[in-house]
Amino acid sequence: MTSRDIQHMRRAVALAARGQGGTSPNPVVGCVVLDASGEVAGEGFHAYAGGPHAEVVALREAGERARGGTAYVTLEPCNHTGRTGPCAGALLEAGVARVVVAVADPNPVAAGGAETLASRGVRVEAGLLAEEAERVNAAWLTFARSRRPYVTWKFAATLDGRSAARDGTSQWITSPEARAEVHRLRAESDAVLVGVGTVLADDPSLTARVPEPLRARPVLRVVADPGARTPASARVLDDAAPTLVAVADDAVVPPHLAGAVRLPRADGGIHLRALMAELHGRQIVSVLLEGGPTLAGSFLREGLVDRVVGYLAPALLGAGAAALGPAGVETIAEAHRLEFEEVTPVGPDLRIVLRPQSPKES
Amino acid sequence: MTSRDIQHMRRAVALAARGQGGTSPNPVVGCVVLDASGEVAGEGFHAYAGGPHAEVVALREAGERARGGTAYVTLEPCNHTGRTGPCAGALLEAGVARVVVAVADPNPVAAGGAETLASRGVRVEAGLLAEEAERVNAAWLTFARSRRPYVTWKFAATLDGRSAARDGTSQWITSPEARAEVHRLRAESDAVLVGVGTVLADDPSLTARVPEPLRARPVLRVVADPGARTPASARVLDDAAPTLVAVADDAVVPPHLAGAVRLPRADGGIHLRALMAELHGRQIVSVLLEGGPTLAGSFLREGLVDRVVGYLAPALLGAGAAALGPAGVETIAEAHRLEFEEVTPVGPDLRIVLRPQSPKES
Ligand SMILES: NC(=O)c1ccc[n+]([C@@H]2O[C@H](COP(=O)([O-])OP(=O)(O)OC[C@H]3O[C@@H](n4cnc5c(N)ncnc54)[C@H](OP(=O)(O)O)[C@@H]3O)[C@@H](O)[C@H]2O)c1
Ligand SMILES: NC(=O)c1ccc[n+]([C@@H]2O[C@H](COP(=O)([O-])OP(=O)(O)OC[C@H]3O[C@@H](n4cnc5c(N)ncnc54)[C@H](OP(=O)(O)O)[C@@H]3O)[C@@H](O)[C@H]2O)c1
Repeated sequence: MTSRDIQHMRRAVALAARGQGGTSPNPVVGCVVLDASGEVAGEGFHAYAGGPHAEVVALREAGERARGGTAYVTLEPCNHTGRTGPCAGALLEAGVARVVVAVADPNPVAAGGAETLASRGVRVEAGLLAEEAERVNAAWLTFARSRRPYVTWKFAATLDGRSAARDGTSQWITSPEARAEVHRLRAESDAVLVGVGTVLADDPSLTARVPEPLRARPVLRVVADPGARTPASARVLDDAAPTLVAVADDAVVPPHLAGAVRLPRADGGIHLRALMAELHGRQIVSVLLEGGPTLAGSFLREGLVDRVVGYLAPALLGAGAAALGPAGVETIAEAHRLEFEEVTPVGPDLRIVLRPQSPKES
Repeated sequence: MTSRDIQHMRRAVALAARGQGGTSPNPVVGCVVLDASGEVAGEGFHAYAGGPHAEVVALREAGERARGGTAYVTLEPCNHTGRTGPCAGALLEAGVARVVVAVADPNPVAAGGAETLASRGVRVEAGLLAEEAERVNAAWLTFARSRRPYVTWKFAATLDGRSAARDGTSQWITSPEARAEVHRLRAESDAVLVGVGTVLADDPSLTARVPEPLRARPVLRVVADPGARTPASARVLDDAAPTLVAVADDAVVPPHLAGAVRLPRADGGIHLRALMAELHGRQIVSVLLEGGPTLAGSFLREGLVDRVVGYLAPALLGAGAAALGPAGVETIAEAHRLEFEEVTPVGPDLRIVLRPQSPKES
């Protein structure tokens, strides 16, 4: 691999990133095609589910110039015929001589594109900029490899980690700017999840008050509600968006929750891995976990948080509800350790983005 | 005032900043002297208590070139004869024609330099870059105007605002890099303060394990200990540095605390304004409040925190002692509101520096 290769793959990763928020349940993919002399002949990315794949877009732009050239693809080209035909076949047909791949396709249905290409005489190289390409596709790769959605826990708190004052008031802890961002986070997710405690306390509508990006379906609202306590009047049950209420298999379900899904119980409530499997089955690639503290603690304890987005308000309370409840940590050595990935001012607040220090178990 | 004036005063402020941590109980001051044609002829700053004042240093460098020139001074030149003679006199003697001042001297003993200069025909202008000059001298100005030390509350916590796990363990919440910085913060302060709860729980030595900057006296260790509970074996009582134990006036004082100062009681313990007055009397310009949560809560409630320095570890606990105890906030509208001033990575942690949104009452 040369520094030229790195440069082209970096470009492919940047192209892939443009698809973020729109491709679910597909991955984001970027592709750069060079002609035989090494000039860029075509570029493409996968923009929305059902739309053309990155390779197809780039090859279309390159036309005849692709013959004898090189293709850089952030994810191993698919081998199966979905809605749009296999990309491996398209690369062969275009006469590409060399294919450089960042990340192997973990999907058992689609995988094998590299093998097909190699067996037909194409030079295939893999692993270039794999880390960057993994990151841009983190949600879908978690979905494909671990067979569960990628979970982002979002919280808002004061510097001393509180999300309400002693008397329970919590309005405007964070700024309008931060609250607007949360709506964007929702619009980029396939589902938004809360515990029934949050529904009962705040009656949130959990809709994204921004135009949703081009996406196949509206954001699904999910309530983890073991005892089927969500009231008929709850805003999450309105028709602004679809809602899934997950109740325990032993719950007595009132008529207004007749459509609820029944799941096994575990410590604290719904069995969260069962809930994740249910959402995986519904092709939910990414979940925004919006709390509250109890449910977030359970997710952390189960090793099911892939990313943390915190909005820290420059305020101190000294008393009141904690932003995070019991998370299975008894002693300091068991603390959930993460790494700061981004720190950004948002109005008067601070947005922090973190990931677990070591990859979470599936 | 011209943009030239602003440029020279900005330089004077930068010079003043070089004295930070070394001048107590004096202010930091910077000075730039121009000759009659507007060329820079001399620069100076006050580096340590007892050392030459900024104006004297700059005038010495300028020599005869100061005649008919301009002096930019971050703080109104002093008028009294201290250890080094009045600066107003020195400026007159040097024949400076114009003096530009950022901040008026709040000190009743030294004030009046501007008046003296004006009465002798010098053109005096005041208020240029006052905000920047106030900031660099914040500790001393609080000391002089409010007759109490400038208080920096330092805390270390996880993202969820905890400073220990459920079982009380708290070792290495923050990184070695962050802990090294705390030693530097101590070395830059005149005093380090904790409540007796921290002494009993952690037995800290509260010394600065870095070479202290050039300063008139070692950092004073202070313990707020209403009931005279500090044990004879406590590290704060060793001879590594001087220590002031503040007990309530009704305390029964054991022999090893015979040197303690008696102060009135208030809600929660020692009357904190009385303690501040005591420290002011001892020429303590800046205090690093190192906790714990109970004492920090009382300081916040009393409006006695001028700056907050937090070290946020990228970790989550979900249970355990809070970094901040009750701070007089019952409902969200009463939250202590601050502003982020600096956000900096320190090893794997994040250092945040904040100031109260509105100037604190004296
Ligand atoms: N700062 C923030 O970012 C933020 C975000 C959201 C909410 N909040 C605040 O949080 C408060 C609500 O707190 P909360 O802790 O009661 O809300 P919650 O975490 O939303 O709900 C907790 C409930 O979820 C149910 N649950 C289902 N499966 C669970 C599992 N595996 N583990 C744990 N719980 C499970 C349980 O219901 P059953 O009791 O019926 O079994 C449990 O009591 C509100 O005041 C709200 O304002 C803050
Ligand atoms: N995360 C951090 O940055 C940090 C920093 C320091 C300590 N800590 C932790 O904090 C824990 C100790 O907590 P703590 O809250 O007991 O410690 P603390 O705040 O240091 O001490 C509290 C005690 O200070 C005395 N006090 C004197 N004047 C007071 C006033 N005006 N208001 C309130 N208290 C006053 C009281 O003693 P009497 O009870 O005798 O009246 C009170 O109980 C330790 O576990 C330590 O590790 C954490």
